[in-house]
Amino acid sequence: MVAILRHGVSDAQIESLCNWFRAKGLDTHVSKGEYQTIIGLIGDTSKIDTDLLEGLDIIESATRVSEPFKSANRKFHPEDSVIEIGGAVKIGGGAFAIMAGPCSVENASQITEVARAVKAGGADILRGGAFKPRTSPYDFQGLRGEGIELLLEAKKETGLPIVTEIMDAHHLSLFENVDVIQVGARNMQNFELLKELGHTNKPILLKRGLANTLKELLMSAEYIMAGGNGNVILCERGIRTFETYTRNTLDLAAVPMLKELSHLPVIVDPSHATGRARLVRPMALAAAAAGADGIMIEVHNDPANALCDGAQSLNPQQFAEVAAAVRRVREAL
Amino acid sequence: MVAILRHGVSDAQIESLCNWFRAKGLDTHVSKGEYQTIIGLIGDTSKIDTDLLEGLDIIESATRVSEPFKSANRKFHPEDSVIEIGGAVKIGGGAFAIMAGPCSVENASQITEVARAVKAGGADILRGGAFKPRTSPYDFQGLRGEGIELLLEAKKETGLPIVTEIMDAHHLSLFENVDVIQVGARNMQNFELLKELGHTNKPILLKRGLANTLKELLMSAEYIMAGGNGNVILCERGIRTFETYTRNTLDLAAVPMLKELSHLPVIVDPSHATGRARLVRPMALAAAAAGADGIMIEVHNDPANALCDGAQSLNPQQFAEVAAAVRRVREAL
Amino acid sequence: MVAILRHGVSDAQIESLCNWFRAKGLDTHVSKGEYQTIIGLIGDTSKIDTDLLEGLDIIESATRVSEPFKSANRKFHPEDSVIEIGGAVKIGGGAFAIMAGPCSVENASQITEVARAVKAGGADILRGGAFKPRTSPYDFQGLRGEGIELLLEAKKETGLPIVTEIMDAHHLSLFENVDVIQVGARNMQNFELLKELGHTNKPILLKRGLANTLKELLMSAEYIMAGGNGNVILCERGIRTFETYTRNTLDLAAVPMLKELSHLPVIVDPSHATGRARLVRPMALAAAAAGADGIMIEVHNDPANALCDGAQSLNPQQFAEVAAAVRRVREAL
Amino acid sequence: MVAILRHGVSDAQIESLCNWFRAKGLDTHVSKGEYQTIIGLIGDTSKIDTDLLEGLDIIESATRVSEPFKSANRKFHPEDSVIEIGGAVKIGGGAFAIMAGPCSVENASQITEVARAVKAGGADILRGGAFKPRTSPYDFQGLRGEGIELLLEAKKETGLPIVTEIMDAHHLSLFENVDVIQVGARNMQNFELLKELGHTNKPILLKRGLANTLKELLMSAEYIMAGGNGNVILCERGIRTFETYTRNTLDLAAVPMLKELSHLPVIVDPSHATGRARLVRPMALAAAAAGADGIMIEVHNDPANALCDGAQSLNPQQFAEVAAAVRRVREAL
Repeated sequence: MVAILRHGVSDAQIESLCNWFRAKGLDTHVSKGEYQTIIGLIGDTSKIDTDLLEGLDIIESATRVSEPFKSANRKFHPEDSVIEIGGAVKIGGGAFAIMAGPCSVENASQITEVARAVKAGGADILRGGAFKPRTSPYDFQGLRGEGIELLLEAKKETGLPIVTEIMDAHHLSLFENVDVIQVGARNMQNFELLKELGHTNKPILLKRGLANTLKELLMSAEYIMAGGNGNVILCERGIRTFETYTRNTLDLAAVPMLKELSHLPVIVDPSHATGRARLVRPMALAAAAAGADGIMIEVHNDPANALCDGAQSLNPQQFAEVAAAVRRVREAL
Repeated sequence: MVAILRHGVSDAQIESLCNWFRAKGLDTHVSKGEYQTIIGLIGDTSKIDTDLLEGLDIIESATRVSEPFKSANRKFHPEDSVIEIGGAVKIGGGAFAIMAGPCSVENASQITEVARAVKAGGADILRGGAFKPRTSPYDFQGLRGEGIELLLEAKKETGLPIVTEIMDAHHLSLFENVDVIQVGARNMQNFELLKELGHTNKPILLKRGLANTLKELLMSAEYIMAGGNGNVILCERGIRTFETYTRNTLDLAAVPMLKELSHLPVIVDPSHATGRARLVRPMALAAAAAGADGIMIEVHNDPANALCDGAQSLNPQQFAEVAAAVRRVREAL
Repeated sequence: MVAILRHGVSDAQIESLCNWFRAKGLDTHVSKGEYQTIIGLIGDTSKIDTDLLEGLDIIESATRVSEPFKSANRKFHPEDSVIEIGGAVKIGGGAFAIMAGPCSVENASQITEVARAVKAGGADILRGGAFKPRTSPYDFQGLRGEGIELLLEAKKETGLPIVTEIMDAHHLSLFENVDVIQVGARNMQNFELLKELGHTNKPILLKRGLANTLKELLMSAEYIMAGGNGNVILCERGIRTFETYTRNTLDLAAVPMLKELSHLPVIVDPSHATGRARLVRPMALAAAAAGADGIMIEVHNDPANALCDGAQSLNPQQFAEVAAAVRRVREAL
Repeated sequence: MVAILRHGVSDAQIESLCNWFRAKGLDTHVSKGEYQTIIGLIGDTSKIDTDLLEGLDIIESATRVSEPFKSANRKFHPEDSVIEIGGAVKIGGGAFAIMAGPCSVENASQITEVARAVKAGGADILRGGAFKPRTSPYDFQGLRGEGIELLLEAKKETGLPIVTEIMDAHHLSLFENVDVIQVGARNMQNFELLKELGHTNKPILLKRGLANTLKELLMSAEYIMAGGNGNVILCERGIRTFETYTRNTLDLAAVPMLKELSHLPVIVDPSHATGRARLVRPMALAAAAAGADGIMIEVHNDPANALCDGAQSLNPQQFAEVAAAVRRVREAL
C-alpha cells in the first residue's frame, strides 16, 4: 500500500503516522518529495481500510499495490482451476463448456424439447430460469420451485447437468440437485447470499454486475471462496454504458484480463450482453477467440413466443450452427 | 406502446399481427410509411413484455409510451406523499428532514455521543450502519443485531427516530423497532428483499443503485408498493461513471426529475456520493436548492478513527454548520 | 418519426399540430389512447429536428423511427463497400486488411525498421503517428510534417501504403501522398474537419469517439460522405466506461452492429482499446471472429523505449504471430 | 511518481532501473515488499510518460502523485483568478456572472429581442450560437460569420458583452470583437484549436467534454495557458452516462472539486446538461448553492419555434425569475 501525504506535512506528523503504522505491524519506507511525501507500507495491509487512511487529515490518498483478493488470485494459485460439473463436464484449464437453454422454464414440454434440441446441437449443460429477476413486479416472475422440478426432469431425460439462478439464500434447499447455482448480475453484491453459497460446495456461476469492475467481481468471488467453496466460475455478460443500440456492452477484454488476475474459469454470455439474436453468433465466436472457457447461449424452440427475452434467443438450428462454428474457432487456436 | 415493423412486411403479416394484439385486448392503429410501418397499441399494455414483441420476426422495435410504474406514478397520485417517521418527523410535501449519523455503529459510547451531537446540530433522524455491505469479505461487516440494539438505546436517550440498512429479508425480525428500513444501493434490485419489505408497513428508504436508471429506481419502489407498502422514500446517492476524482457522480437532476415522475419524497446522500468530506457541504446545499425533501449526512465524532468511510464523514461542528446553511438555502427559496 | 403528445391535449390542439406537420409535407396518422396520443409522421422527416418538436408544449417526446444517416445507411446501399487503398489493398466486402506500425514516427531508422518488420509479418498497410494528440501540452507532440516525410520514405522502401492521423484541416496539403487519412477519436465530432475531408476523395479512417454512440459515429461518417467522399472506413477503438483495469472498453459488438446498419467497412484497434500489450492478441483474434474487415495493431521494434504508448505495443515477432493467428481464425470461418 | 515493480524482480534489475531514472535527473527511494517493490521517484517527473514506464517489462504500474497541470494548478496560484470580460464584468473570486441567450442566432430581431429581455432579466453577458456543432450534417449549421455580426449589433444596443462558440482556429479573425470565445464540449480536446487560442489573450470559456475527466479538462486549460493565455473559464455542462431521462448527467460536484484543484473560475450550464426546460431552474439554483462562479442559461423569446434546443430554453419571464432566485440563494450563503 502507498500513502501519499498532503503538501506541507511536518516531520513530527510523519513520524507520528509511521509509529501508528508500525503499531499495526507494518513497515514503513518514507520518500520525501518536493511537493509530496510518499510512505510505502509493507506487510499485511489487507485488513486496512483505504478509507480509514484517507480520512486522516494529513493523507491525500492511499492506494493498494497488491490486489485485495487472495483465494481468487492467480499469484497464490498459478494453475488454472478446473471445475467439475455433474460428474461429467469440466470447465477451465483447457476444457470448454457450452451452456444453453431458454431464458425461462415455461412448461414441461418446452423445457424438455429445448433440452433435447440443445443436447443434439452440442450443449454440455442445460440452463433455464426458474426464479426470474424482473425489473417490473408485473412481469412473469418464473415458475420458481416448480421450474426447478421441470429442469430436473429434463436432466433425467437428456443427461445434461443443469444451471439455474438463485435469488435468495433461503431457497437453497430447492437447489439440492441443481448442478451449478447461478448468481445473477443484480445479485453480484448480495453479500449475504454470497456468504451462504460459500458454505455449500456446489459450483457457483457468478455473473458480473451491470456496472461492477473486474476487481469487484473478483472480490465477490472471494466472498464465496472465503466461505470455503472454491468452485466459482466467472461470467462476463455485458456492462452498462451510454450506448443504446445494444442492451449492454459486452466487455470481451474481461476474459483475458480475468484469466491473468485469477485462476478461476471465465465464460461469456453473449445473449444477455447484446440483447439481439443477430449479434449472438459473432459475439460467441469472438468470445471463443478471446480465450473464454465457455459460453452461455439462450435457445428457445419458439423465440417469438418466449415469455421473456425472446429477442435475444436463438432457435435450435441457429444454436447448433453457432456451437459448431465455435469449435472450429477453438481448433484454429 | 408503439411497435415499429421491419421494412418489407406484407399486409397479410400486418393483419395477422393486429389480430394477435386484439386477442390480447388491445386496439391497434396502423401507420404505413415509406420505409417503416408503425402500429400504435392502445389499452392495458403494462403486462406485455416489450421483449416478447421484439422477439417477433417482423417487429424491429417496441417502445412503451406510458411509464410502467403505477403506484409510484404521479399521474395516478398527483399530490406529494408525506411519509411519517417515528410519529414525529415528516418528510415530503414541503416537510424537509435531515438524517445524520456515523457510517457504522461501532460501540455504545460512539453511537450515543454522535446521536447527541447530531441532535444538537439539527438532525431529525439518526442513521447508523449495523449491517454493513463491504466489497471485501475481510473488511468490518458491522455489529449486526447488536448494532441495532445500540441504535435503539441511542434512540431512547435522544428521542431521535432511527434509520438503518437491512441486507436480507430474514433479518426483518430484528428491525421491529427501527423507524425506517434502508435498502442499500447494491440491493436496489434484490427483488426478493423488496417483495418482503412490501409486506411490512414500515417506511423504506430506497437507495438508487450504482448504475440504475431513474426508471429502474421507480420500478423497485413499485415492487415495494405493489406488496402493499406505500411508504417509500427515494434516495439519490451518486451513480457510477468514468470520473475518478469523486467516488461516484452525484446526479442532482434526479431530484426534480423524480419529483416530476413520482409523488414519493426524494432525499440526497452527498456523503456516499462524493466520498470526500470537503464536498459534502456544497453538495448538501445544492441538494436543498434543487428541491430535495431531505438529506442524509455521515457524521462521526472522530472521523480519523472511523471503522469505515472516515474520509467522507463530517465532525459534529461541521455538521451543525451544514444543517444551518441548508436551512438558510431553503428559506431563501 | 413518432410524436407522443402530453396527457390532456384537446382535439383542437391535435388538429392544429397536424396541420403544421402537413404544411411541412408530412402525412400524419393519429392514435388516440387512454393516457397518451401518438402521431405517426410519414415522409421526409430527416430535416426535422426532434429538439424542435420536443420544444412544443403539447409534445412529450419525439422519436425518429428511421435512422438519420442516408449515405452511410445499408438500406440505401445494400452491398458492402470495398475501399481501395494505395492501388493495391482492398478493405471490405470480404477483403481483410491489417494495419500495423508504431504509435509515433520517431526517426528515420525506427520507422523504416518497423515498416520492414511489419511487412514481413503480414501487414498490408503501415501506420505511424506524425501529428500526435496528447492530453498534456508537455508531452511529445509528434514530428508532424517531418514525420509524414519519414513515412513516405518507409513507403517507398517497402511498398506499404500509409495511414496517419490529421489533426487540423489546414495541414491537408501535407497529406497529399498519404494513402489513408485518419481522424482520431477526439476529433470524431470535429465537424469542420469532417466537412473538409468530405471534399477530398482520399480514404478516411474514422475512429469512434471515446463516448460516442454508434449512431453518432455513422452521422460523422455521413458528414464526410455528404461532402462527396464515400471512402470511409469505420474503426472501433474502445469506449470510455467505469472499468479501470483496461484503458478503454473494447465494444466488439459494434462490429456486427455497424455492419448491419451500414455498408462501410469496419476495423478494430485493439491496441488503443486495451492499452495493454498482453490483451492485444486475444482481442485481435476476437475482432476477426466477430467479422471485422481489418485490424490496426501498434508495433514497435523496441516497445520499452517507445516515445508513447509503449505499454500497448507489440514487438515484430509478437505481431507476426498475431497476424498469422488472425488468418487462421478467418479461415476457420 | 510511484513505480510498482512486478513480483520476482531481481536486485540487479532494480539497480539497473534506478540508474536509468537517475540518468534522467530523478531521485529514487526503494521500498522492498513481500509481494511487490515500490520505487518512489522524486524530481521533475512531468516530462516522463507513464506509458513509457509501464512499457518496461519489470514495471507493473506507474502512477503520478502530483497533478500534471501547473499553470492551472491552485498549488502554484493559491488565489482565485478573476477574469475581466468586456471591461465591465468580472467572474471568479467572489464575482458571479450570468450568461444568457438563445442556442442559435437566428435573425436580427430575434437576437436583439432576446438580448434586451435577458439584460432586463439580470444577465451580465449575452450568449448566442453563430457556429453550431450539429451531430447531423443536415441540421441547421448556424449563421456563422453573419451570426457574429448580429451578436455585435445586439451588444451595441444593450451594452452586454458577448460569448460565442468557435469551431475552427481559422475563423479567429471573425472573433476580434467577441468578448469571450467558447470552446464547445466536442472540441475540448481539439488540441490544435486550444494551442491557437493560447496565442490570443481573449477570455476562453472551456466546456468540459461529454466524457472527459476533470483532470483532462484541466489539461485542456493547461494547453491554452501554456500558450500564454491565462484567461480561462471552466464550464461543467453535464457528462454522458447510462441515464436516459436527462440529456446528460450534470456533475455538480465538479464545481467544488475544480475550485479545489484550480484557481480558475468555474461556471455551470444547466440547459445543455439537462436538456429539459423544467429542470433548468432547480439545477441553476443548485449550481449557485454549490459555489459556481456563474451560470449559462438558454433563453429564447419563443422556445417552441427555436431552430435548435427549444426543449431546454427558458422564455424571458422564466429566466428573470431564475436569475432572481439564484441571487437569493447566493445571498443566503
